[in-house]
Amino acid sequence: MEYIISERMKSLKGSAIREIFKYAADPSVISLAGGNPDPALFPNEELAGIAKELLEDQPVASLQYGITEGYTPLREAVKERLKRVENIGRADDELIIVSGGQQGIELITKCMVNEGDAVIVEEPSFIGATNAFRSYGAKLVGVPVKEDGMDVDVLEKILSERSDVKMIYTIPTFQNPMGVTMSVEKRKRLYELAVEHGVLILEDNPYGELCFDGKKTPTIKSMDKEGIVAYSGSFSKILAPGLRLGYLCADRSLIAKAVIAKQVSDVHTPCLTQMMANEFMKRYDLDGLIQKMRASYAHKCGTMLKAMDEYFPKGIFYTRPNGGLFIWCDLGNGIDTLALSKKTIAEKVVYVPGCTFMTDMEKPCSALRLNYSTMSDEKIVEGIKRLGKPFRDAVAAAK
Amino acid sequence: MEYIISERMKSLKGSAIREIFKYAADPSVISLAGGNPDPALFPNEELAGIAKELLEDQPVASLQYGITEGYTPLREAVKERLKRVENIGRADDELIIVSGGQQGIELITKCMVNEGDAVIVEEPSFIGATNAFRSYGAKLVGVPVKEDGMDVDVLEKILSERSDVKMIYTIPTFQNPMGVTMSVEKRKRLYELAVEHGVLILEDNPYGELCFDGKKTPTIKSMDKEGIVAYSGSFSKILAPGLRLGYLCADRSLIAKAVIAKQVSDVHTPCLTQMMANEFMKRYDLDGLIQKMRASYAHKCGTMLKAMDEYFPKGIFYTRPNGGLFIWCDLGNGIDTLALSKKTIAEKVVYVPGCTFMTDMEKPCSALRLNYSTMSDEKIVEGIKRLGKPFRDAVAAAK
Repeated sequence: MEYIISERMKSLKGSAIREIFKYAADPSVISLAGGNPDPALFPNEELAGIAKELLEDQPVASLQYGITEGYTPLREAVKERLKRVENIGRADDELIIVSGGQQGIELITKCMVNEGDAVIVEEPSFIGATNAFRSYGAKLVGVPVKEDGMDVDVLEKILSERSDVKMIYTIPTFQNPMGVTMSVEKRKRLYELAVEHGVLILEDNPYGELCFDGKKTPTIKSMDKEGIVAYSGSFSKILAPGLRLGYLCADRSLIAKAVIAKQVSDVHTPCLTQMMANEFMKRYDLDGLIQKMRASYAHKCGTMLKAMDEYFPKGIFYTRPNGGLFIWCDLGNGIDTLALSKKTIAEKVVYVPGCTFMTDMEKPCSALRLNYSTMSDEKIVEGIKRLGKPFRDAVAAAK
Repeated sequence: MEYIISERMKSLKGSAIREIFKYAADPSVISLAGGNPDPALFPNEELAGIAKELLEDQPVASLQYGITEGYTPLREAVKERLKRVENIGRADDELIIVSGGQQGIELITKCMVNEGDAVIVEEPSFIGATNAFRSYGAKLVGVPVKEDGMDVDVLEKILSERSDVKMIYTIPTFQNPMGVTMSVEKRKRLYELAVEHGVLILEDNPYGELCFDGKKTPTIKSMDKEGIVAYSGSFSKILAPGLRLGYLCADRSLIAKAVIAKQVSDVHTPCLTQMMANEFMKRYDLDGLIQKMRASYAHKCGTMLKAMDEYFPKGIFYTRPNGGLFIWCDLGNGIDTLALSKKTIAEKVVYVPGCTFMTDMEKPCSALRLNYSTMSDEKIVEGIKRLGKPFRDAVAAAK
């Protein structure tokens, strides 16, 4: 049979990261291409005890169908935590547990974006989100990102010129892929522009807790008085991603629609994993665990930056993140990092070419994303060292 | 802010079953409205031991990000089982693990159905599926269901008259909500019609294993030579629904698209739950567990039918299922079972009104769905007894 794929899905391709991961599976290759949290920090012994107890003592709650909104005690615990840690939660806000942050993004898109509508995204941005928008036929409109976040002047211009913008997607804190954080001033202006133009903000904050110095920038959602911000959060980077647990907090009328969308998507997030996260928060010190993560990632990021200072060609740009999992590096000089990745693969090291994160993925891009979260210091230094020569050669040849 | 909901989601309402479930939460109410498997048959002790061991011994595999296609050993185990039990698996077929059977339906719809395309469904059919189709802007075209399954003459007529049909959705075995099974002859004809008209069949088979006499009707997918059948299976009714585990088997080119759709939906199904199902199948006797379910549901179904014979008005129609979880009852006489449900709620008993399962949910319907899977014999008999008087009164008044 010849399958006539739907218009919305026809042109959507698998993530380029997946192709690069094929090489990353070779143990002699150092992968700086990942985005995984460090498994050494997973509280697996604690979760093992919890899982056993839940299945033994609460077989119906843990194994029977649950409600679409999520396991009630977990919802309450997340609401309490969001209020305490991020000052999030208007009287008219509601919260739904989702199957990882990705699902929150998809549900909001399904509920809000018609085929042909425009969605404003940071350029570069997270491919999981941009592909979710593409999968509903959205037109992506990119806004450049500076070291203090999205260029809000460009945003203002787009909003004043176009009437088809349905949503603004932003990862304001420790952005994927750049690692940069939007300033408080820009957050305020972004919020005001959204209110002025009546456009929903989708604030994605999977990395916000991973601030190296423990200092948090106020979320855009914490400024929300109008219900114009939908906030996507996740347990993937603060507990364990394999559990596939996230949450979506937005005005209750919007969450009510998201619940209907989730009902036809996966009915509900598994009960056991929800109950495990809830019990972990009740019995153990999640904030303490996050402290350990901050210290570990701060150290690894510092190690990578020091190696980059030593081995990378002089005069190129890279970010110096204060949190999160990623460093963004721009070789400039018209270098195509996708083509260059073939050379670095020969050196047994991989990264993610910048084009992956762009609204136009076909256009050559001189930037790339590096990740440091899962490796030993030795591997981080060795990986950067291996990139050094091809990077220096490429820059020298391009000049 | 005023939210302008997308066209596809604008008119989609929550399931009517959810409203009825509110009454079902009252412990004095007997709910015949559910669709849950019997939690007494959940192998929770076995799963507790498995979960603990997996989290202790394989923390990375069970808690780190996994691949979108699913946990490889589980995929292999399900393929092997499908081949052995259902004779499913062409050389060009592939299989993806999904987050419950519902997700398989949603992914195929997203990949195949454009807004405005027609999807043929049995009338009545499973609301989770019909709402998934609605959520992608599909036009639903109903085909009546007889005691031996979908009326294939009507199907043939529709296929010859319309060119906008993209998919035929069927639950051929122990259909939800009717409990009936499509004959082998009709399955063959349905398959041939689909091939002739080049229309994909989505075969949904969550109840097929629950055959009271252990005799199986060949799946439509087992007849598939063209790759024209996408098969949706589930662990919800043979292991535990709270795990949210299902699988989708179809031509590899279609599965490749479904993988991309799943990547933007929830990245992957949780690792732990997938590994638990895989370990359970390795260590324990899933076929033996299913045998117990068959015997238990056969007994409960028999108990309900006997009570219906005794307490229900004479001369009305109801199905006598050979498997699955549901009995369909038609009071006829122009009775509106949605209106009637208000009276039965006063008698402390609830069912699902037939209109819920129809393409036009606003039209009054004289049928209703009954479920017997989770209750004691006493409750089943008492529930049917409570329905008896309002049903007899309604039929007497309507005559």
